[in-house]
Amino acid sequence: MSNKIRLGILGGGGDSLIGGVHRIAANMFDRYQIVGGCFNPNPSENKSFAERIGLSTDRVYDSFELLIEEELKRPAAERMEVISVLTPNFLHFPMAKKLLENGFNVICEKPLTTSYAEALALEAIQEEKKVVFAVTYTYTGYPMVRQMKQMIADGAIGEVQKVDLQYYQGWINPFMHKPELRKSVWRLDPEKGGLSCCIGDIGTHAFDMVEYVTGMRVKQLLADLNYRYPDNEMDVDGTILVRFSDYCKGVLRASQIATAEENNFTVQIYGHKGSLKWGQENPNYLTYLQEGQPMQVLKPGYDFHSPFAQDATKLPPGHPEGMYDAMGNIYNGVAKAIRGEDSFHGAYPDMEEGVRGMLFIEKVLESHKNGNVWVNL
Amino acid sequence: MSNKIRLGILGGGGDSLIGGVHRIAANMFDRYQIVGGCFNPNPSENKSFAERIGLSTDRVYDSFELLIEEELKRPAAERMEVISVLTPNFLHFPMAKKLLENGFNVICEKPLTTSYAEALALEAIQEEKKVVFAVTYTYTGYPMVRQMKQMIADGAIGEVQKVDLQYYQGWINPFMHKPELRKSVWRLDPEKGGLSCCIGDIGTHAFDMVEYVTGMRVKQLLADLNYRYPDNEMDVDGTILVRFSDYCKGVLRASQIATAEENNFTVQIYGHKGSLKWGQENPNYLTYLQEGQPMQVLKPGYDFHSPFAQDATKLPPGHPEGMYDAMGNIYNGVAKAIRGEDSFHGAYPDMEEGVRGMLFIEKVLESHKNGNVWVNL
Amino acid sequence: MSNKIRLGILGGGGDSLIGGVHRIAANMFDRYQIVGGCFNPNPSENKSFAERIGLSTDRVYDSFELLIEEELKRPAAERMEVISVLTPNFLHFPMAKKLLENGFNVICEKPLTTSYAEALALEAIQEEKKVVFAVTYTYTGYPMVRQMKQMIADGAIGEVQKVDLQYYQGWINPFMHKPELRKSVWRLDPEKGGLSCCIGDIGTHAFDMVEYVTGMRVKQLLADLNYRYPDNEMDVDGTILVRFSDYCKGVLRASQIATAEENNFTVQIYGHKGSLKWGQENPNYLTYLQEGQPMQVLKPGYDFHSPFAQDATKLPPGHPEGMYDAMGNIYNGVAKAIRGEDSFHGAYPDMEEGVRGMLFIEKVLESHKNGNVWVNL
Amino acid sequence: MSNKIRLGILGGGGDSLIGGVHRIAANMFDRYQIVGGCFNPNPSENKSFAERIGLSTDRVYDSFELLIEEELKRPAAERMEVISVLTPNFLHFPMAKKLLENGFNVICEKPLTTSYAEALALEAIQEEKKVVFAVTYTYTGYPMVRQMKQMIADGAIGEVQKVDLQYYQGWINPFMHKPELRKSVWRLDPEKGGLSCCIGDIGTHAFDMVEYVTGMRVKQLLADLNYRYPDNEMDVDGTILVRFSDYCKGVLRASQIATAEENNFTVQIYGHKGSLKWGQENPNYLTYLQEGQPMQVLKPGYDFHSPFAQDATKLPPGHPEGMYDAMGNIYNGVAKAIRGEDSFHGAYPDMEEGVRGMLFIEKVLESHKNGNVWVNL
Repeated sequence: MSNKIRLGILGGGGDSLIGGVHRIAANMFDRYQIVGGCFNPNPSENKSFAERIGLSTDRVYDSFELLIEEELKRPAAERMEVISVLTPNFLHFPMAKKLLENGFNVICEKPLTTSYAEALALEAIQEEKKVVFAVTYTYTGYPMVRQMKQMIADGAIGEVQKVDLQYYQGWINPFMHKPELRKSVWRLDPEKGGLSCCIGDIGTHAFDMVEYVTGMRVKQLLADLNYRYPDNEMDVDGTILVRFSDYCKGVLRASQIATAEENNFTVQIYGHKGSLKWGQENPNYLTYLQEGQPMQVLKPGYDFHSPFAQDATKLPPGHPEGMYDAMGNIYNGVAKAIRGEDSFHGAYPDMEEGVRGMLFIEKVLESHKNGNVWVNL
Repeated sequence: MSNKIRLGILGGGGDSLIGGVHRIAANMFDRYQIVGGCFNPNPSENKSFAERIGLSTDRVYDSFELLIEEELKRPAAERMEVISVLTPNFLHFPMAKKLLENGFNVICEKPLTTSYAEALALEAIQEEKKVVFAVTYTYTGYPMVRQMKQMIADGAIGEVQKVDLQYYQGWINPFMHKPELRKSVWRLDPEKGGLSCCIGDIGTHAFDMVEYVTGMRVKQLLADLNYRYPDNEMDVDGTILVRFSDYCKGVLRASQIATAEENNFTVQIYGHKGSLKWGQENPNYLTYLQEGQPMQVLKPGYDFHSPFAQDATKLPPGHPEGMYDAMGNIYNGVAKAIRGEDSFHGAYPDMEEGVRGMLFIEKVLESHKNGNVWVNL
Repeated sequence: MSNKIRLGILGGGGDSLIGGVHRIAANMFDRYQIVGGCFNPNPSENKSFAERIGLSTDRVYDSFELLIEEELKRPAAERMEVISVLTPNFLHFPMAKKLLENGFNVICEKPLTTSYAEALALEAIQEEKKVVFAVTYTYTGYPMVRQMKQMIADGAIGEVQKVDLQYYQGWINPFMHKPELRKSVWRLDPEKGGLSCCIGDIGTHAFDMVEYVTGMRVKQLLADLNYRYPDNEMDVDGTILVRFSDYCKGVLRASQIATAEENNFTVQIYGHKGSLKWGQENPNYLTYLQEGQPMQVLKPGYDFHSPFAQDATKLPPGHPEGMYDAMGNIYNGVAKAIRGEDSFHGAYPDMEEGVRGMLFIEKVLESHKNGNVWVNL
Repeated sequence: MSNKIRLGILGGGGDSLIGGVHRIAANMFDRYQIVGGCFNPNPSENKSFAERIGLSTDRVYDSFELLIEEELKRPAAERMEVISVLTPNFLHFPMAKKLLENGFNVICEKPLTTSYAEALALEAIQEEKKVVFAVTYTYTGYPMVRQMKQMIADGAIGEVQKVDLQYYQGWINPFMHKPELRKSVWRLDPEKGGLSCCIGDIGTHAFDMVEYVTGMRVKQLLADLNYRYPDNEMDVDGTILVRFSDYCKGVLRASQIATAEENNFTVQIYGHKGSLKWGQENPNYLTYLQEGQPMQVLKPGYDFHSPFAQDATKLPPGHPEGMYDAMGNIYNGVAKAIRGEDSFHGAYPDMEEGVRGMLFIEKVLESHKNGNVWVNL
């Protein structure tokens, strides 16, 4: 009998890009078997999608409620062990809540919920149920991000004194300049997009990343958002001053109107002894600067890396891995946690990171709406 | 009933890196279902490996002969449709030969065989049986390589007048300098490594690539190999002058003692109107030079790419894909060919490329041993 | 008789780095002849320095007052035509003031003065005297900066909607962490360093650059500075939110404690049709992004550049020029202005840029000291 | 009285690019004073050019013979100490010969002469006269090239086992494809271009560089040139296999039809412990690879560099210097040699390098014309 983890999936059907990312990632370390799910609210599309990806349809359910009900009837040794929630944002909360209440481990896409209050509610249930809960901030899965986290923890750059993160995209720009075009983008519709567009979608990645790699917590922030036009209701750009203390400061910069930028997410952490710099578009390069020393560029696949980073590389040096591989590493971390194996702290982004992300979004909006003032987190 | 292609695998068990690459690649487009194979010559390890990767063991066979025998007993609609051959090089020929003779489609690791004569023999059988046969020159699967091929075919750089390919690695260097260390590397043992070390392993990639992207055939070559020490019997470095005609020339450069290089494979093609340059370690960048114009850098995921290149990209611009994805594209090409779907020429490296590769190896050795003289291909 | 411009220099003697930069720059286009100056307040060092650089000492003066007095005695056709002021910051004002009052053209190092009030005073005199006055924001002299300015003016990126400039250095970091070490850095001493350390020294470059390349004026700013330690009195880091309008915003980021950064000055300008990006450490590359088009990288020396940029390149493409060449271009721009030749707007940074720089410094400090609030410029 | 070196210049008048390079370079370290020369064979243009660059015309001569004659009449303390020869190639020999015979130090552009025999003749005279003689292989003046030379000498990469140099340009390509256009390029005319076009012009740079940085001598070579069309008489591309020994090999690659390449000169040296890589278009980066260590990128301006490299940098880290600065370093090296100061071996490219360059050209042509065979140097 295979020891693979039985995985169910909610959402991610049809042409969903993120669905493919999760399925490929789940297969990467031979740790998961997708056994069923509910991929689409339309029952017929749900079944045909399951067939397309080669699943037998006996555990393909018409709704997530039915999935929970039916799976609970199975013996524990057959039951789905973990459920990936890939549905639209507003469904994360009700689905994750019920899954947690029924004792399922959960892998949830970001943002965790649509409000901080919802996020806190989930956190409370998880603490009670003691199940594994991951929030897929994908970029934390890159090996050189993990190496950065470990090096900072090990003191390689000394005490952090300044941070600077950028997440610049241009994809909303072509839709911005005519009101009728804006309507074609659901993220620009306050009904569907939730609290925030740019900050919720990508600003949160920057916020999570800075706390992930430094192990520190942002204490205060001051935000200035840009809506580009008076008749546009959703933020498409923002700059956020952050403070970890009075003497350790930094800035998070996010934009979806940085015209023709692709997915230009960069991280710069400056300590009193050295610095680390990384960029998502070339994820296999980590630049390490030290006072009075030659610049070093670290690439994956070497023994000199921390075991944590080595664990996130499957190929020898010089054979590039990409974003699927980053997500694969997160799934591998979750697998180890579910199986109770020795894992690394940070092997997957957890509930706390999801909750902090929601707090961040609300605080950014609060700061901006109150006239770009400092708010405490 | 799923329309997935039923895939069997020979070799690739245990800690095999290439085994993982093929399994992940096969899963990437939801086109294949691994149904069985023979992963390991040791029956007990064979079974336990199958279990580890979550396969039921009813189609896991003790030998490739048994696999063929038993699968042929199944109705066509259940039978394995394609077999991936990932075994050590000397087994490629006998396995591929018998698979072809029995009408199976084959995906074979490179080098195709251990001699040109064997390669020709396979080619003859395939022509008779009219099955699909792929040789996994992985790097041809990168989207920007495909774009390069298409642009050259479309005349973007005009008539090719010069080519320059480099494949530099350093991994053999640490073993070179003491005879006892050399013994630990099977590729340096003429018994196991076959005709050639450096040229056979990586020189062939450069040779295949130049013919793949230009669509031209090398007519003559002159090779100078380096063995580094008098008591070392296998080539670890070589420079090969090539001619497509008297006025279109170039050079292939390969090394495994380019100390501390990782997998530095670069391609430079110069035409009379422009040039294209690509490097494997940063595979998502294709540099396009044109007379008197700004340099262009093409990245995957745009509408301006050829459909052939677009077909090889799963994510939006700026989300890096890597070597697994390149292999996934080759598997996708094979799937389309097996299913008789509209495919692109070059969607997978084929038998002819495998045969040319073996001819290349033999001719390089002939040139070198005869005193670095020109030989015809 | 040579038509070269007769140049005098104040300061820049001894081991002064900036002295060498100005002398080499002045020679680059065969337009200037250094005829004398006052290089050092110590008369004997002044003379010996003049001899070291090969000047006859008859026009080497003991003070700037004497220089003015004696040069005015000469006929106009022999008199120094322009004076470069390279002395410590607090001397810029009295020297420039007296030079202007006496009708000399002036090339002045930045920052222009020690206060905005002084800067306004100089501006008033210049307007009356109608002489040429340059402030050496060196980086505006790079050809690809000029091309960026011209392309924005020509609409290549459409309407500017976002700007992002970074000027990160690490040179102060090694002195920061012990109070006694800090004392060895004059910029950290409020007596000598003036109003500001980081913002005055390098923040002004970012401010000048953004106004130079966009041709727009910053209307409001909000600044957060970092002093790193409670007992350190001078800013060593700062992030400044800027607004050109309610819907065109951006950020200037400056640091001298970005540990082990060298001179990492970058400029990113985003318009509604495209973007331009440039970095000082690799000044011969200008990245041009356009919606749905391949990335372009522009390098100097081509006919497709604006005449303004072409005028700033002396060598064919691929022959790198550097910071001396950038300053040389500024000197060339001043020479054309002095000789009344056809010049380009922006061929040298002018009085207005110097004045704006001083206003910027004062407003940044005002914003920070009032609790990081918006202030108008 | 200034201690500056009295410099005379032959050639380099009018719009000569190389003339500007030498004048700016000579000024960079305040070591030279240009006192006269013969810039142009036309007496009136000669004078007017001298005036344009601000020279008094009393030491501007109508011919080089007159220059020698008149300067010899002056007392040694006033006489030109060194003459830069910037005239067309065929004039290098007669001018340098007579200058040497009369005891002048010489700085000569490359190629040294038009034949190896001429070069040997110059060498013999220089040995007798014991004057300083430099051949301006400009690229050896870059600080990171010097650092590479020193590191190899110090054993940083161990024993060299492989070299690979590329010098790719595209500037001849637009003229290649129509015979009438070819006529407009003097280098493609055997009457004017001498023995060789591509190899003579840029192949020699690669050859000099590899011997300069490794300190080794090429023992054998085998060359294949490309003339692109049957009716073109001059080489425009060539690949040259080189051997330092039977087990240390490499390749030099040069092209002027590498379409749209600018001045892409790269150097890769592989030793048994590590490697060094450098490229002319980004001259301030030296990549240092070591077995099992992070990649290092060395940039100028640090204490960790050899004194030899530090001596070639005028600015702090991050302030780019370029090709003028490289030539300035060569002039500085010559100045130290003339003044008998402590200099570094390799501080300027010398007569031996000029002679080797001519031998190289002749041997490349010999190898090619004899059917791409090995020839000894």
